[in-house]
Amino acid sequence: VTEDKRLTEEEPFGDRLSRRVAERGSQLVVGLDPDPARLWPRAYELVQGAAPDSEPATRAAFAVAVHCALVIEAVAEHAVAVKLQVACFERLGAPGWAALSEAAHRARTRGLLVIADAKRGDIDVTAAAYAQAYFGATPTPYGEVEGLSADALTANPLLGADALEPLLGTARQAGKGLFVLVRTSNPGAADLQDLALDSGETVSERLARLVHELGQLGTPHEKLSDVGAVVGATAPERLARLRERMPETPFLLPGVGAQGGRVEDLAPALGDDPGSLLITASRAIVNAGTDGTDTADAAREAAARLRELAWNLCP
Amino acid sequence: VTEDKRLTEEEPFGDRLSRRVAERGSQLVVGLDPDPARLWPRAYELVQGAAPDSEPATRAAFAVAVHCALVIEAVAEHAVAVKLQVACFERLGAPGWAALSEAAHRARTRGLLVIADAKRGDIDVTAAAYAQAYFGATPTPYGEVEGLSADALTANPLLGADALEPLLGTARQAGKGLFVLVRTSNPGAADLQDLALDSGETVSERLARLVHELGQLGTPHEKLSDVGAVVGATAPERLARLRERMPETPFLLPGVGAQGGRVEDLAPALGDDPGSLLITASRAIVNAGTDGTDTADAAREAAARLRELAWNLCP
Repeated sequence: VTEDKRLTEEEPFGDRLSRRVAERGSQLVVGLDPDPARLWPRAYELVQGAAPDSEPATRAAFAVAVHCALVIEAVAEHAVAVKLQVACFERLGAPGWAALSEAAHRARTRGLLVIADAKRGDIDVTAAAYAQAYFGATPTPYGEVEGLSADALTANPLLGADALEPLLGTARQAGKGLFVLVRTSNPGAADLQDLALDSGETVSERLARLVHELGQLGTPHEKLSDVGAVVGATAPERLARLRERMPETPFLLPGVGAQGGRVEDLAPALGDDPGSLLITASRAIVNAGTDGTDTADAAREAAARLRELAWNLCP
Repeated sequence: VTEDKRLTEEEPFGDRLSRRVAERGSQLVVGLDPDPARLWPRAYELVQGAAPDSEPATRAAFAVAVHCALVIEAVAEHAVAVKLQVACFERLGAPGWAALSEAAHRARTRGLLVIADAKRGDIDVTAAAYAQAYFGATPTPYGEVEGLSADALTANPLLGADALEPLLGTARQAGKGLFVLVRTSNPGAADLQDLALDSGETVSERLARLVHELGQLGTPHEKLSDVGAVVGATAPERLARLRERMPETPFLLPGVGAQGGRVEDLAPALGDDPGSLLITASRAIVNAGTDGTDTADAAREAAARLRELAWNLCP
């Protein structure tokens, strides 16, 4: 872990996150992982007849973009951020990538932070390319190519600190941040992340220390560090131990709802700042509507409920 | 680790790889990680004047696609596969994704296997979406959207077996495979992968066992397993121990050349089949031309040299 010398005028991401959570009174991150075969009915209606001769990918990506816009409009008032699941856009190829960019833009115009859930991690040269894709721009002889301009990116730390540093360097220059995988929400997380090291700590606990250390570098922060942690809401018994190791780290907690996590169980994950605990729900919000219910109303109500449950955890 | 019941008529990936290596007399994987600011001069010449009014991303992606085609034409006779570094395309957004698809297509038409170096890894639902992106197709109301149709994908195992299984399930149905990160080539790999577990083995060695176990499931293979391992060529002292744990696993060895690895040191990585040892070089081939040399000739010669060095390791 080496210190990042590139300082910036930008407010550090963690403090910006803290301020946004306070302003909006919400720690809710709405996950968008659109399946083109199960979008909101209204999305299909709105694109009906549009460009009927174009490729399936183009039409599907258009429907996905409209669906994301509808979800964002429905839930924006209750959320602080969206989490865009990049895989769901990537599978539609080039038009899918355009839809991802459109969804990010739409979220920003509604005052939401944009978290790109891409779980990227690679050696230095490649990490720098991902940094250009998500936070920066790529110089070309034809002019700069702007990236997605996400506010934060999820990152995989298996390759170690030198693979995270190029992502973090570019992020910090733009006042952006990372959420590093520490303990994921799936059962298979136990295969590696829960293994005990000969030092006595688990792999996840070692990752927690790395996240804390990386977060202490860069521009000093007042409230929260700009290196967050992804910590599954499905393993609440681990939360207190991880919070101890990462006192100023924003936690992004996936796994609420469809994966079985309960907001009420997450109090041990809370730090000193409400922004230290971000709950993310995708299917629990987007698929809240059952037969006969308006999907947008149901999503809005589900978002309002989750927002309140989380807010009630704060003293 | 649960057995994958979906059998397929396709030749399993490991055996196909073994056959291709034998047919072409090459274990060389040419890495393509194009930087739009440093392409071959000929690529810029060929796109000069094309679509001068389009966006920088479109023009840059066009130049990248032409560059990749030139490299593939130059080195195809000496290689068995290309490794496409997805980050380098992703940073150009939607047009970059189209260039990636074009490069994969070009490599296939020259008889090369396509390895998508994306290092993806995510929970089951998301892994299934990545599987559609790289190996399968995505059903939509407008028709199926074909993915990249890669022959293999690099995958990150931090999330455990249940995150790899959806990728592997889809891959196997199509006779495709994975290369799972076991010990990467960067110095930071030591931060986590070299840590000792209380069982006495290192994290990398534990991952090696997981890779071996996953490779024993699925359609039985004759020569090589369809779950490969990414093992950095920069740490040859570890190769023998990893080979012991993964006797039938194809190793993909990055780090030759620019990162300091030497082909001559890789003999301990060899298993019973020549296809068990794949060396991958990017900059050492693509940037072999110095001032005044023809870049294509220089790349072809560098590829021929690396191919021979590796082939000489085989008994």
